Amino acid sequence: MARFFMAGTNLTGARAVIQGKDAEHIKVLRLRPGEEVTLCDGDGTDFIGNILHVGEGSAEVEILRSEPSAAEPSVRTTVLAGLPKGERGDYLVQKCTEAGAADIFFFQCTRCIAKPNNIEKKLERWRRIAEEAAKQSGRGVIPHVYYLEDFGEVLNKAVHCDLGLFLYETGERISIREAVEAKPDAETAAIITGPEGGFEPFEAELARQVGLSICAMGPRILRCETAPVMALTALMYGTGNL
Amino acid sequence: MARFFMAGTNLTGARAVIQGKDAEHIKVLRLRPGEEVTLCDGDGTDFIGNILHVGEGSAEVEILRSEPSAAEPSVRTTVLAGLPKGERGDYLVQKCTEAGAADIFFFQCTRCIAKPNNIEKKLERWRRIAEEAAKQSGRGVIPHVYYLEDFGEVLNKAVHCDLGLFLYETGERISIREAVEAKPDAETAAIITGPEGGFEPFEAELARQVGLSICAMGPRILRCETAPVMALTALMYGTGNL
Repeated sequence: MARFFMAGTNLTGARAVIQGKDAEHIKVLRLRPGEEVTLCDGDGTDFIGNILHVGEGSAEVEILRSEPSAAEPSVRTTVLAGLPKGERGDYLVQKCTEAGAADIFFFQCTRCIAKPNNIEKKLERWRRIAEEAAKQSGRGVIPHVYYLEDFGEVLNKAVHCDLGLFLYETGERISIREAVEAKPDAETAAIITGPEGGFEPFEAELARQVGLSICAMGPRILRCETAPVMALTALMYGTGNL
Repeated sequence: MARFFMAGTNLTGARAVIQGKDAEHIKVLRLRPGEEVTLCDGDGTDFIGNILHVGEGSAEVEILRSEPSAAEPSVRTTVLAGLPKGERGDYLVQKCTEAGAADIFFFQCTRCIAKPNNIEKKLERWRRIAEEAAKQSGRGVIPHVYYLEDFGEVLNKAVHCDLGLFLYETGERISIREAVEAKPDAETAAIITGPEGGFEPFEAELARQVGLSICAMGPRILRCETAPVMALTALMYGTGNL
């Protein structure tokens, strides 16, 4: 069944009016009155309906029912990643969207090499990448992408989740498997990973003090854009979402 | 401890002579006689020794002992991926090396869009990427990268592993978690993933007939370069390597 995100859609009662690119797309797909389509609100709910009318630049849909998007995992996961250099952020957003992240925050911390110049432009770009990846992979949620300047806020976001994973490459740690298996029914989770240079010991110590799980992900050293998608995959596996 | 792959190293009895770039690197690191270094054979064994002598363009090391590389997972995994277009192959090789693949095969199949033009040049490039990623991530094995023209050979490689995972996006499948948990002590595994266009039903049927596990990896549609690294991560998690 054809599937559209509802941005640019007007939902009034049981009628939706689709406009812009999606309306063009409906014409390209030659969808006709009576055919079923899914309209996704980008926040986890799908609306299933019948096409009533296909016109110039708009299409009308009768909504029959709504349901939670089937492609969304049971655990709502926030990925928080130290701001990386160059195209690594693009990669991180695309892969974490495929792997099921609900929100993605980039943040500043002591060892960040990347400067937050033009961060608004970068955020625009990453939001576009998240939307495209969400559409391609059949997500019901378009991950929100934000930037945080304050490392304290990063910890604070994770503290309010059922499961807070802080990936760290040295010192006293448990395996990510142990951490996930301690909370297999988590409904919310946070994954915090560092920038190219990793975390300062005091940053990891703060994370430990506020009660996050300080985790290792095997004995290999992972690139800063690889760690989040692997951690997300481990989390999805351990919570029964893979 | 500084760590070098042994390509370009001459190992005679208990003496190793390091030449070329690695010898230069030893000078740059200002390593001196008496300091310990690790020489890795790129095939899973580390040789630990003391520097005896640092000269112009070469350095001599006395080998004290050898041991299995600590960073290698307990399961030796072969990744077999439908030949992808453009830079996706680069990404796939780099990330699968970080995630612990032992060998990577690209192959032709019915829905491949990419042409195997200049495949020798591509293989050279991918081998360089694998070597760099192995060094960066602290691997004890540099994954071998090959190309297979024959889909039958692909299935044959997987059949000879303790666990053969065939990732498929439709039809009757088990979850990758079920497949891995059925063989948590696997010593060898194969992961087969398709190209951009996926597999033909007859290809999946052949895989089923030869006894591979036909697996799903969640309800989302994954890009051809994302699926292998996620499958590898799931496998590492399920076999106690994460």
